[in-house]
Amino acid sequence: MYVVKSPLSDANLKTVSEALQGALVDLIDLSLVAKQIHWNVVGPRFRSVHLQLDEVVTVARQHSDTVAERCAALGVSPDGRAATVAVGSGIGVTPEGWVDDTTAVGTLVDALGAVIARMRERVAATEEPDPVSQDILIGITADLEKQHWMFQAENG
Amino acid sequence: MYVVKSPLSDANLKTVSEALQGALVDLIDLSLVAKQIHWNVVGPRFRSVHLQLDEVVTVARQHSDTVAERCAALGVSPDGRAATVAVGSGIGVTPEGWVDDTTAVGTLVDALGAVIARMRERVAATEEPDPVSQDILIGITADLEKQHWMFQAENG
Amino acid sequence: MYVVKSPLSDANLKTVSEALQGALVDLIDLSLVAKQIHWNVVGPRFRSVHLQLDEVVTVARQHSDTVAERCAALGVSPDGRAATVAVGSGIGVTPEGWVDDTTAVGTLVDALGAVIARMRERVAATEEPDPVSQDILIGITADLEKQHWMFQAENG
Amino acid sequence: MYVVKSPLSDANLKTVSEALQGALVDLIDLSLVAKQIHWNVVGPRFRSVHLQLDEVVTVARQHSDTVAERCAALGVSPDGRAATVAVGSGIGVTPEGWVDDTTAVGTLVDALGAVIARMRERVAATEEPDPVSQDILIGITADLEKQHWMFQAENG
Amino acid sequence: MYVVKSPLSDANLKTVSEALQGALVDLIDLSLVAKQIHWNVVGPRFRSVHLQLDEVVTVARQHSDTVAERCAALGVSPDGRAATVAVGSGIGVTPEGWVDDTTAVGTLVDALGAVIARMRERVAATEEPDPVSQDILIGITADLEKQHWMFQAENG
Amino acid sequence: MYVVKSPLSDANLKTVSEALQGALVDLIDLSLVAKQIHWNVVGPRFRSVHLQLDEVVTVARQHSDTVAERCAALGVSPDGRAATVAVGSGIGVTPEGWVDDTTAVGTLVDALGAVIARMRERVAATEEPDPVSQDILIGITADLEKQHWMFQAENG
Amino acid sequence: MYVVKSPLSDANLKTVSEALQGALVDLIDLSLVAKQIHWNVVGPRFRSVHLQLDEVVTVARQHSDTVAERCAALGVSPDGRAATVAVGSGIGVTPEGWVDDTTAVGTLVDALGAVIARMRERVAATEEPDPVSQDILIGITADLEKQHWMFQAENG
Amino acid sequence: MYVVKSPLSDANLKTVSEALQGALVDLIDLSLVAKQIHWNVVGPRFRSVHLQLDEVVTVARQHSDTVAERCAALGVSPDGRAATVAVGSGIGVTPEGWVDDTTAVGTLVDALGAVIARMRERVAATEEPDPVSQDILIGITADLEKQHWMFQAENG
Amino acid sequence: MYVVKSPLSDANLKTVSEALQGALVDLIDLSLVAKQIHWNVVGPRFRSVHLQLDEVVTVARQHSDTVAERCAALGVSPDGRAATVAVGSGIGVTPEGWVDDTTAVGTLVDALGAVIARMRERVAATEEPDPVSQDILIGITADLEKQHWMFQAENG
Amino acid sequence: MYVVKSPLSDANLKTVSEALQGALVDLIDLSLVAKQIHWNVVGPRFRSVHLQLDEVVTVARQHSDTVAERCAALGVSPDGRAATVAVGSGIGVTPEGWVDDTTAVGTLVDALGAVIARMRERVAATEEPDPVSQDILIGITADLEKQHWMFQAENG
Amino acid sequence: MYVVKSPLSDANLKTVSEALQGALVDLIDLSLVAKQIHWNVVGPRFRSVHLQLDEVVTVARQHSDTVAERCAALGVSPDGRAATVAVGSGIGVTPEGWVDDTTAVGTLVDALGAVIARMRERVAATEEPDPVSQDILIGITADLEKQHWMFQAENG
Amino acid sequence: MYVVKSPLSDANLKTVSEALQGALVDLIDLSLVAKQIHWNVVGPRFRSVHLQLDEVVTVARQHSDTVAERCAALGVSPDGRAATVAVGSGIGVTPEGWVDDTTAVGTLVDALGAVIARMRERVAATEEPDPVSQDILIGITADLEKQHWMFQAENG
Repeated sequence: MYVVKSPLSDANLKTVSEALQGALVDLIDLSLVAKQIHWNVVGPRFRSVHLQLDEVVTVARQHSDTVAERCAALGVSPDGRAATVAVGSGIGVTPEGWVDDTTAVGTLVDALGAVIARMRERVAATEEPDPVSQDILIGITADLEKQHWMFQAENG
Repeated sequence: MYVVKSPLSDANLKTVSEALQGALVDLIDLSLVAKQIHWNVVGPRFRSVHLQLDEVVTVARQHSDTVAERCAALGVSPDGRAATVAVGSGIGVTPEGWVDDTTAVGTLVDALGAVIARMRERVAATEEPDPVSQDILIGITADLEKQHWMFQAENG
Repeated sequence: MYVVKSPLSDANLKTVSEALQGALVDLIDLSLVAKQIHWNVVGPRFRSVHLQLDEVVTVARQHSDTVAERCAALGVSPDGRAATVAVGSGIGVTPEGWVDDTTAVGTLVDALGAVIARMRERVAATEEPDPVSQDILIGITADLEKQHWMFQAENG
Repeated sequence: MYVVKSPLSDANLKTVSEALQGALVDLIDLSLVAKQIHWNVVGPRFRSVHLQLDEVVTVARQHSDTVAERCAALGVSPDGRAATVAVGSGIGVTPEGWVDDTTAVGTLVDALGAVIARMRERVAATEEPDPVSQDILIGITADLEKQHWMFQAENG
Repeated sequence: MYVVKSPLSDANLKTVSEALQGALVDLIDLSLVAKQIHWNVVGPRFRSVHLQLDEVVTVARQHSDTVAERCAALGVSPDGRAATVAVGSGIGVTPEGWVDDTTAVGTLVDALGAVIARMRERVAATEEPDPVSQDILIGITADLEKQHWMFQAENG
Repeated sequence: MYVVKSPLSDANLKTVSEALQGALVDLIDLSLVAKQIHWNVVGPRFRSVHLQLDEVVTVARQHSDTVAERCAALGVSPDGRAATVAVGSGIGVTPEGWVDDTTAVGTLVDALGAVIARMRERVAATEEPDPVSQDILIGITADLEKQHWMFQAENG
Repeated sequence: MYVVKSPLSDANLKTVSEALQGALVDLIDLSLVAKQIHWNVVGPRFRSVHLQLDEVVTVARQHSDTVAERCAALGVSPDGRAATVAVGSGIGVTPEGWVDDTTAVGTLVDALGAVIARMRERVAATEEPDPVSQDILIGITADLEKQHWMFQAENG
Repeated sequence: MYVVKSPLSDANLKTVSEALQGALVDLIDLSLVAKQIHWNVVGPRFRSVHLQLDEVVTVARQHSDTVAERCAALGVSPDGRAATVAVGSGIGVTPEGWVDDTTAVGTLVDALGAVIARMRERVAATEEPDPVSQDILIGITADLEKQHWMFQAENG
Repeated sequence: MYVVKSPLSDANLKTVSEALQGALVDLIDLSLVAKQIHWNVVGPRFRSVHLQLDEVVTVARQHSDTVAERCAALGVSPDGRAATVAVGSGIGVTPEGWVDDTTAVGTLVDALGAVIARMRERVAATEEPDPVSQDILIGITADLEKQHWMFQAENG
Repeated sequence: MYVVKSPLSDANLKTVSEALQGALVDLIDLSLVAKQIHWNVVGPRFRSVHLQLDEVVTVARQHSDTVAERCAALGVSPDGRAATVAVGSGIGVTPEGWVDDTTAVGTLVDALGAVIARMRERVAATEEPDPVSQDILIGITADLEKQHWMFQAENG
Repeated sequence: MYVVKSPLSDANLKTVSEALQGALVDLIDLSLVAKQIHWNVVGPRFRSVHLQLDEVVTVARQHSDTVAERCAALGVSPDGRAATVAVGSGIGVTPEGWVDDTTAVGTLVDALGAVIARMRERVAATEEPDPVSQDILIGITADLEKQHWMFQAENG
Repeated sequence: MYVVKSPLSDANLKTVSEALQGALVDLIDLSLVAKQIHWNVVGPRFRSVHLQLDEVVTVARQHSDTVAERCAALGVSPDGRAATVAVGSGIGVTPEGWVDDTTAVGTLVDALGAVIARMRERVAATEEPDPVSQDILIGITADLEKQHWMFQAENG
């Protein structure tokens, strides 16, 4: 059986891997939600919002890969399956069907806000047990807060 | 309210949009399953399988985008949310945790086989109502069957 | 004198070359109309519409080249001269002068709609006589219907 | 209604915008004529002439865009519609059908010669009222005269 | 022993794999013949024909790879060995030694014509048993017919 | 001490170097103003305006470098320090704080208009003393007037 | 009115936004000072110093954009106007006119030293209130200290 | 008739052209054999071997082109037709059908070994009569021996 | 003599420069060890391991350059000479000669593990005296731990 | 015999073609002189001067091509043969052998100065007869004066 | 004074540097002759010959740089000045004025033939005294003989 | 155990492998020495020398890889470990600490001179036993002698 001797103590590993697993689920869901609205947005800002959402998708996919591989690097199996994401995501339910552009922007403001709040908790939680993982989470938070600003400004 | 006058009759539209929506769910799940195993595979073929899986992810993501936008182009809202994928995918349950490389390859052989079987049904179902959608589904099937061969050969 | 022995029978060649010549005229006119509005659009969505129209121009130019060379490959001389386009295009008259962005989007919705309707007839007409030409026309229709969706959503 | 306060006086604006509108029509027609012969040329120099013509198309398309946007920048709506081009171009009628390579080269020599003569008049006419527009027309003339030389040399 | 459960019935698989194997042999031989003349052509059109032939080589090599891998994807071993090609190709014997440019162009017109005729039969034969393979063969036929036109026009 | 023997007479050099130094200050300030609004714009056109402003920044930075190095090439030291820019710019005061998108576009229309008016005077002033410097200023004016059109059209 | 609910408390936000606004002003001025000397440097090391200074400009421009957008992401309007920079920069006055290369290098050593000292204070000040902003400031400091070393070594 | 006055004497030309013609046949066959196994390999090392074989194909194709054009440059017509290759290659018969990965690697070890042995004889034979051709053959031998090592190490 | 006034106190500088000098030696040795095994690995995983090792070399070379220049930026001369590396590296002795692939992977697991352990100590040691250097060491540790995971998984 | 009907009168053509032919000879010689010193420069500024001289070569080669083709476009045969250059260049004799870096820079200052003086006369001479040729000569003068500044500053 | 202790004995150095200096003069003249005909060629093969000549220019320029720097590396000053080239080149006089395409090709056949004959003598002369220089001359000869073949074939 | 049947006799193999192993050690040490001085150089030529040294590093790294893989291709295990390099290099001891630029250049002149002398012996030694290895060593010597010239000229 595959066992990795982690550079962290068991207690620290538990804290850090929970933070990373939570981040993974949030980021995968963010990529799915952003794509969902990318396809369903309607209205005079269609093209602007459609394109901006693909930047969110790119950011979310890259970071989800980094976080999952960081999890593996610490010797803990990451879980990014659809059912896990559907259950564990910190983003609220996205309604089905077409969505007008103002609502679309608002949905992203809410989704990013929810993920950022949880990311900041993870940044705080990982500082002591593993500054390497924390540094990754800090970088993710910076990118998400930049996206958050742009969607807020778009509806400002 | 947003209504698009589709180039297809109502009956044809129903058939085609069901095929496209089904393909969308399968392809998103394929991308998530391939990533899951990309992160969790273990064994002497780790690097080969790890890299090959990212090619599957790329293929699945590109085609899922094409299929969803084709759906929208016909005037039907596509649904690619996590919960929809978790419930509707044609791929069986992927077990959690580390997976040895032979099992990993076998999982992909099964997953691709399941999706291909449903894709071939969709190719047949869309031929009459919409040859444009059918052509897209044929191209997807060709790519999936190529991947299917490579994973079969890897475990051959 | 230059005569090409076509792979098609005379009757089939007549059907197919008429479809291709018609598609050529429509696509050249689409590229000219899109450029005309690209230059004349005015309003709060100026930049979005201005940029989107250049994507239509790129699509229309590439497909017009493919269609004309397909015509030549079957041994029939293609005709893409200005006067031929002015007379034979399926797109209605584009009014001169500045155009506000909502009207601009609407003009494209109409122009694309008109061309798509004729393309679908050509897809049907060429299926039996020449599946190779049909496959080209199917690909063009897919691209035009995607553009059609995006302009409809923009005014949705 | 959209009105731009031009940096030019009314009289100067009239002179300059006529020069630009004339250049626009000539350049669009040059791009269409070059494509027409690109598709219809036949003979031992087919490949050379076919490729050289695409360079003319590229040059003509780039400059037509610059000229039309310069027109808009001065506050005058440019007109590049098919019917306008068919009526107003300075290039003589291009016969339909296949064309042998020597005739093809000669047709371009004539077409470029006609456009160049009109461009040189526009260069002279715009010198006083708007050196900025003149500079653009000078650059276009340089490119067209280079193409003119190459087609003359090809039949020399 | 390596056995793949094909998505096609045995009868359909036999038809389709024969079409693909035949296409493979023709395309490899086309690449060899085009290279042979690329090296041996002589005359005032040397450079044009020399370069055009390398485009044929590129097209033939890419499609031969696609066809062979499609064969494998259906569970049938492809055969592209020199002896198989020498015996099974649909292209007539290419004479050895230097070849003047007019003859070179004529040789390609004949070689492409022979391959195209067999490709069109394969397109017809695969329509029912496997639209996925047919779609690949249609795309190949389109490319070959474009090359066929250009060599015909070169000697036109 | 560093003295360059200029190709221009003293009188001409004075005229030309004043024109270039003035252009340098205007262009640096334009780049700072465009960045300021790039960061502070708010509203439904946020993304469009935000991106368009970065194109202004790129244009202004490239031209300021060309103008300053032209100044040096004539043997006159250019001055692009913050205090010099703050005092000498032809652009009016930009208010601090967030700015809604319509005001943002209007600010650029005004800023570009002010710089263009001064540039046209410089084009006229340098024609006799140094056609080389004039040619550079003409090219800058063309780019600024193109940007001016696009912002006017955006608020048109 | 545009109000962003910041992820930081009011006290923390005040500390962090002051640090970011100060960094913004320093970095913009650094880019202007480096350009000023890039244009005015004279002496046997002209080319080396001229090129090295453009690397400083690139670094300073990229980081100023990151810092300003970070400020906006926290809900505080950044101020990068010329007058603000002229007054608030931590870099001493740069004398006008030509500058010999040794003095030029010394000027950069001093300018970078001044900015670095203030950056290190900002790194310390932001550690508690916002590790995300601190991480950005740490990265900037690393780049500036690398440039500082290279200019010191150049005059060493 | 086309006759080139070779820079070599008749006797030297005979030696050198035989060496080059022999190398041409070996290299074309090497490219066909490598592709054959690229398509037919099966087993746990499928992906590694499949990819490595395409590097052999690239090497063999590039060198075969160089050798054939060197032949032509000396005034001797090269012969790379399928039948010539099938008869004259120094590589033993490749069996048809699927091949397991260990056998696949062994086949390449043998094929490369056979070609290298003949190449070394050609290097020796051409040293005196034509150091220019020898230098080309030396470069080819270096590349083949590098590939030979990698396949030996793969089965080591 | 060359003296740099460091931004750190003498005590802090001693701690930080020892950490950086130690990291430099470890990273250079890691690049040499990875190359050594890149050349000497033998076995069925030859190609996978051979390629993965070049990624380690790239990572180690980039980070060694960053660390050495960081050392210089603090005013302390870095030492990366062969003898210094041979004596001071934290990696155990690599045996000479060919190495089978399983041993090769194990050697990297050990080498990376040894370097990571020391890096984590350096991360802890530099936190107080210099967060800028610490941030660089954290980024290096993240990359090394990712490589560590992949080699562990390869032998898992 | 090859005769081109020039767009210029005979008198104007004589003036313009003499200017262009003179520019051609100067620019070719400039490229040869710059290469000569590129190879022969010696001294502490070797690398800086060596690299800067290759930028002069690039500039001179590009402009010589433009000028010669402009000459041909006007129907006058350009002459860029070595003997013509050796006799007609406006650049003084470059001494043979190694050259120290200060002398090398001085040689370029002189060579560029001589060519610029003649270029400015050509700019004046061509203004009336052909503004298109004048515009090309103005652009060349701008580039040469920029190089002139940089070599003056290097020895300043 | 600058003296380099050459790796060659005085006698060997004399032989080798004469060979390199001779090659330098021939290659520079070849680049000038090819450009001269590139501009002056006329006739139905204008475009083919015009483009092929630029490939000769590129080859001749690259090799002349290599040869001159090889000369410098041996401690002997290379001489590539116009007068040296005009006197010492092995290429016969190129007549002035327009040249029809057949003559143009013939001129290149002769020019390349003359240079190749001298290059082969240099290859023989340098074998013993400096195999490093010989290897460079062998590579140049291979490229020139390839060009020689293509021009012979063009007129064949 | 891994044994490769070398294409060389035992005696020849011994001679060639010693030459290659010696070259490997020299080239690795050259890369380490060049990096050491790249980091430690100080003085007015800092930037020039710093950059030139990275070109030496690139050259040395590429050639060391080629030489080591050539060694492996002949069936002999290469040894590039730090201790082997520290003991066996032909380059003298590089002193620790900062180094002024003139000394830095001199160190490279000496280091390159030492390696070149040994390389020329290896070129002579390998001519008979293996012209393939000799050709590689000749190419390396050419590159090193070019670098040697540039550092000599820099201190000339």
